[in-house]
Amino acid sequence: MIETSYYNQCLINQNNKDMKTGNDIKIVAVIVLALIILSTDNSYSQAQPAIPARRASAAPVRVNSPEILPDNKVILRVYSKEAAQVSVTGEWQSGQGAQENLARNDSGMFSITIGPLAPELYAYTFTVDGVRALDPGNVNVRRDGVRYENFFIIPGPGSDLYIHRQNIPHGTVSKMWYHSETLSKDRRLYVYTPAGYEAGNEAYPVFYLLHGAGGDEDAWTNMGRAAQIMDNLIARGEAKPMIVVMTNGNPGESGAQNEIPRIRTDPQSGQSATGNFEESLVKDVMPFIEKTFRTIPGKDNRAIAGLSMGGAHTQTITNNNPGMFGYIGVFSMGLMNMGPRTVDAATEATERDEKIEALKKSGYKLYWIACGKDDFVYQSAVNLRNLLDKHEFRYIYRESTGGHTWANWRIYLSEFAPMLFK
Amino acid sequence: MIETSYYNQCLINQNNKDMKTGNDIKIVAVIVLALIILSTDNSYSQAQPAIPARRASAAPVRVNSPEILPDNKVILRVYSKEAAQVSVTGEWQSGQGAQENLARNDSGMFSITIGPLAPELYAYTFTVDGVRALDPGNVNVRRDGVRYENFFIIPGPGSDLYIHRQNIPHGTVSKMWYHSETLSKDRRLYVYTPAGYEAGNEAYPVFYLLHGAGGDEDAWTNMGRAAQIMDNLIARGEAKPMIVVMTNGNPGESGAQNEIPRIRTDPQSGQSATGNFEESLVKDVMPFIEKTFRTIPGKDNRAIAGLSMGGAHTQTITNNNPGMFGYIGVFSMGLMNMGPRTVDAATEATERDEKIEALKKSGYKLYWIACGKDDFVYQSAVNLRNLLDKHEFRYIYRESTGGHTWANWRIYLSEFAPMLFK
Repeated sequence: MIETSYYNQCLINQNNKDMKTGNDIKIVAVIVLALIILSTDNSYSQAQPAIPARRASAAPVRVNSPEILPDNKVILRVYSKEAAQVSVTGEWQSGQGAQENLARNDSGMFSITIGPLAPELYAYTFTVDGVRALDPGNVNVRRDGVRYENFFIIPGPGSDLYIHRQNIPHGTVSKMWYHSETLSKDRRLYVYTPAGYEAGNEAYPVFYLLHGAGGDEDAWTNMGRAAQIMDNLIARGEAKPMIVVMTNGNPGESGAQNEIPRIRTDPQSGQSATGNFEESLVKDVMPFIEKTFRTIPGKDNRAIAGLSMGGAHTQTITNNNPGMFGYIGVFSMGLMNMGPRTVDAATEATERDEKIEALKKSGYKLYWIACGKDDFVYQSAVNLRNLLDKHEFRYIYRESTGGHTWANWRIYLSEFAPMLFK
Repeated sequence: MIETSYYNQCLINQNNKDMKTGNDIKIVAVIVLALIILSTDNSYSQAQPAIPARRASAAPVRVNSPEILPDNKVILRVYSKEAAQVSVTGEWQSGQGAQENLARNDSGMFSITIGPLAPELYAYTFTVDGVRALDPGNVNVRRDGVRYENFFIIPGPGSDLYIHRQNIPHGTVSKMWYHSETLSKDRRLYVYTPAGYEAGNEAYPVFYLLHGAGGDEDAWTNMGRAAQIMDNLIARGEAKPMIVVMTNGNPGESGAQNEIPRIRTDPQSGQSATGNFEESLVKDVMPFIEKTFRTIPGKDNRAIAGLSMGGAHTQTITNNNPGMFGYIGVFSMGLMNMGPRTVDAATEATERDEKIEALKKSGYKLYWIACGKDDFVYQSAVNLRNLLDKHEFRYIYRESTGGHTWANWRIYLSEFAPMLFK
């Protein structure tokens, strides 16, 4: 229960006004002022200067948030003498746009107790008098597109794979660049290499893991906890060690917009499903990966899966390239054609039928479709299955509770990865 | 001026209440609803469904913040009908704890015009009725210890190296794990490998770059823009291609606390200058790096530098290991002994004199000390120079304007890296 203890002990200077110099100045000031005294005469005192604890600062307001209680209730707190209303929106709430108000006590501490919550990862943000705000007491922050949110994890069976474990081997996450001839630009991707990759000489199978609309190459490690999930699955012996490649599926972008400014004049900006990214994955990304890393060739050592828009990318890529991927995952996405449409509908339907037949004959090992019962793509996923059934195309269908959420996508990754390369 | 254009076009749904499902749901909903209609009868319409632009959402309040004007003034904006007061704290302000209030117009848009500002990177945060808040219009966020801040860059000569350039080669940043026998734990570090590393067979010199108190292995790439600085310097031919290793200098931590929960029961937590990290860098980190990467051996191909606490670490490491590093940088740190103190003051002074003499004879190429005129460590840095002068120890002193700030540390890195391995 290390993590609970960790979350419970957050301490933050709520009234911090010295952001310009950061924590560094406060701590070092103490050390250095002592040393100026000690060293100005070039003599050395025997008394060792105390090493102040990190984040010590003058008169902080101690705000313990989030506080995870033993019964999995959670107390969120924000301190402000001035605010009139603080509300919270969080993933434990049912219904879109739900908000709950925090209660204010006489000293200006706002708080709310939620739960008890089932073990999971929960994101949330505050709204302070109409402005979205992070929880100043919680260092755990994730980025969802252009938005930043806090999160906490309720430990237990539903979140075991999402938690960083100290005493297991950990893979490397590399932020790399490759050149895409197809998209005429250098582009960034993330590569997870399993523990032992650097020290060894072994070659590994490769899993291409695609994000959805609004995401980027950072999404699966940031929102999706992919590094923790893979580390834990591999350490348990439940998944084979593999390389996981996380691309940027937005063809107009070079990389995540919080690091790489988007060029708005690029004609491909905002066009997320032109077929160009799908083409570039095969023509540019795969050769780069297979040249750069020790990979095992062939379809039986290549997997691809994607969520939502990435599930559409996955269908387009695998339909167009039968025999390239032995393991295929479509998460929270139904039947659609995201490629460029240059033929009439009847011709396209015929072509799709032919592609599915070709894929069927390609000797793939696994075609896995996962969808939540409450997902708005549900009917479209039914249509996808109907079409595959018409072709007597072998697939596994996994229906979960819930909707079009990262909670489901983490679960799908946790279940899909163990089926690969076996 | 790509970046200005980028910053100027931020669009965000200020009243966003649908965080649970994220941007993904809104965009995909439009696509999928169209496709459900298209695909329920298993026929395909010839009309291609429009690909909605990313981040489209229902009735957003358009908030353009930060807006960087042609004269390098900047307008910051926050929208709220409910807030009574919004203030901003930013790196352009003089004096610690400075705050400026935004003005509210009749519709609830708060705004302030600042500058004109010199080209630089500026961090800032809002305070909304007493609670710190990010700018919801600005996707650029950095982490300073436990705090999150927005930032923007005023393009120009003072910030050229900090901006990601599309048309130059880019290095890789890898988040890796190594085992520290000295600290009895697996620990994380970041490694920058220069563009071309993966495709080539060349060996490179190594630069160990250390953070200050309050920071961690993420600090130099996050606050310090180290990847952009190195990419740009190398692309210009001003710095040699090199490997840059960014460690976590807090011996009680496995890794950055926003990703790796800190174990509070660890007796070394909070003890940042016990000598153990310094020892582990030599005993654990360097062998790991030299085993894992293609490195050129020997002191003439090893550099080390650190800011503040990292400058103290640098002194301890280089004093204790003469002949190990040919290039040594002490940024914003003066004379101090951060190692364990087991002897009396006179003995320690004698030992230090001996170590400086040994380092002097070791054949180092560069000893570079940089400090800001307004830095509170200024006098301590004078003492360091006086001690070195006493030994006729060769060094270069670089005095800058300003104080104990990341603005200075970025400048020091930008000036130090070009002097290495030449």
